[in-house]
Amino acid sequence: VAPALSLLAVPGIPPVAPGDDLVQILAAACEESGFEFADGDVVAIAQKIVSKSESRAVALSSVVASQRAIELAAKAEKSPQLVELILGESREVLRVVPGVIIVEHRLGFVLANAGIDVSNVDQSHGETALLLPLDPDASARRLREGLRERFSVNVAVLIIDSIGRAWRMGTVGTAIGVSGLPALLDLRGEPDLFGRPLMTSDLGYADEIAAAASLLMGQAAEGTPVAVLRGLTLDSTDEGIAPLLRPRAMDLFR
Amino acid sequence: VAPALSLLAVPGIPPVAPGDDLVQILAAACEESGFEFADGDVVAIAQKIVSKSESRAVALSSVVASQRAIELAAKAEKSPQLVELILGESREVLRVVPGVIIVEHRLGFVLANAGIDVSNVDQSHGETALLLPLDPDASARRLREGLRERFSVNVAVLIIDSIGRAWRMGTVGTAIGVSGLPALLDLRGEPDLFGRPLMTSDLGYADEIAAAASLLMGQAAEGTPVAVLRGLTLDSTDEGIAPLLRPRAMDLFR
Repeated sequence: VAPALSLLAVPGIPPVAPGDDLVQILAAACEESGFEFADGDVVAIAQKIVSKSESRAVALSSVVASQRAIELAAKAEKSPQLVELILGESREVLRVVPGVIIVEHRLGFVLANAGIDVSNVDQSHGETALLLPLDPDASARRLREGLRERFSVNVAVLIIDSIGRAWRMGTVGTAIGVSGLPALLDLRGEPDLFGRPLMTSDLGYADEIAAAASLLMGQAAEGTPVAVLRGLTLDSTDEGIAPLLRPRAMDLFR
Repeated sequence: VAPALSLLAVPGIPPVAPGDDLVQILAAACEESGFEFADGDVVAIAQKIVSKSESRAVALSSVVASQRAIELAAKAEKSPQLVELILGESREVLRVVPGVIIVEHRLGFVLANAGIDVSNVDQSHGETALLLPLDPDASARRLREGLRERFSVNVAVLIIDSIGRAWRMGTVGTAIGVSGLPALLDLRGEPDLFGRPLMTSDLGYADEIAAAASLLMGQAAEGTPVAVLRGLTLDSTDEGIAPLLRPRAMDLFR
């Protein structure tokens, strides 16, 4: 049998509010639509709804900008309050140009504007910034456990965000939290087509799954924040996202 | 109807030899297995078999290393002949550490070792290096045209390779040539969930598809060099890979 994978949207996910229980929301959506999770599914969840459910939205008007944020904001052409939030989420500022502040996020990711998003948040009460989850690996573990309890299935959970690249235009779906599958797959030592050990190194497995899920999710009015990848063979590794982070000593470009 | 995508392997692709016609090979594999291409399919093809069919394999013993290659080879702990090939494929050397030479490839990609692979090539006649196709966009266009003629289908074709990232461990499937779909998808201007224009920028569409296809292809003994992504709505853009290349003026990390 030829290998095949399916990417399925979980239909009918409503807008998520602070404090919402995502497992409950998924259960209601499944009941409504007839969608069923299955053992071995990878459930990819958009960072936005995880952050919203975990009350990571911050009203910009509530933020007091430091002197450093005010100076950086002028250079980045952003609001000082937003820059204050970016700094608060970051270990280090790597680059600043108008519109973009590239940072090392406190979670270890190198990304623009600390992954803070103001685009898909309800702004009827003023400008609102949505921060990444406090601990996306922990969020993924909780959701995986919740899905196991609610649906009696053993799935993996990815939390994904759209992240830019140093040398390519455009963002791609990228894993920021993972539970139930290895983020990095070690291919070394497996034989190649001619029986010799492969010389290539590791595969960014969780990132490839995140990119695939992102294809289905779309970014806009469609509103498909949960996608399921079905057909992979999973082990139940639970090392989180750490194996995907390039150690500083192996970073050639800072 | 909830959106869904399928990733399908084209089964039974044999090892590819220099000069082979990939459309013929696909036709034979389809006849054997009953697999059928459909309008709208994205046909993702591993760079390795495109390069092999285009006779881009070079015997290292046939290469004469320059003085510069000899010096760089010592620093990179690679063979001078291989480094000579890497230099010949590159516009600029960005970083050199033991085992890795990061270059700007003549095609504009920033990658390790100019994308030259020695792992999956038949080495019974000595060490052989496999270079990227001369013009992967042209290869994609030819294959797309060939599939249209042979199967009367309108598909898109991606040529994909496994490429590393500046700040993440592991390689991910990445597009190096494209025909029949936009490599970059402009999401700006579309309304978000609340009807306001999206602030996010472009989506690395061809790269997300490449990553998805890579999941199915595996890297080793399975030998699945052609994968089909079914279910996307394609326009027939044919701008090639160029929109995915970050212009030097927008590069913050060299």
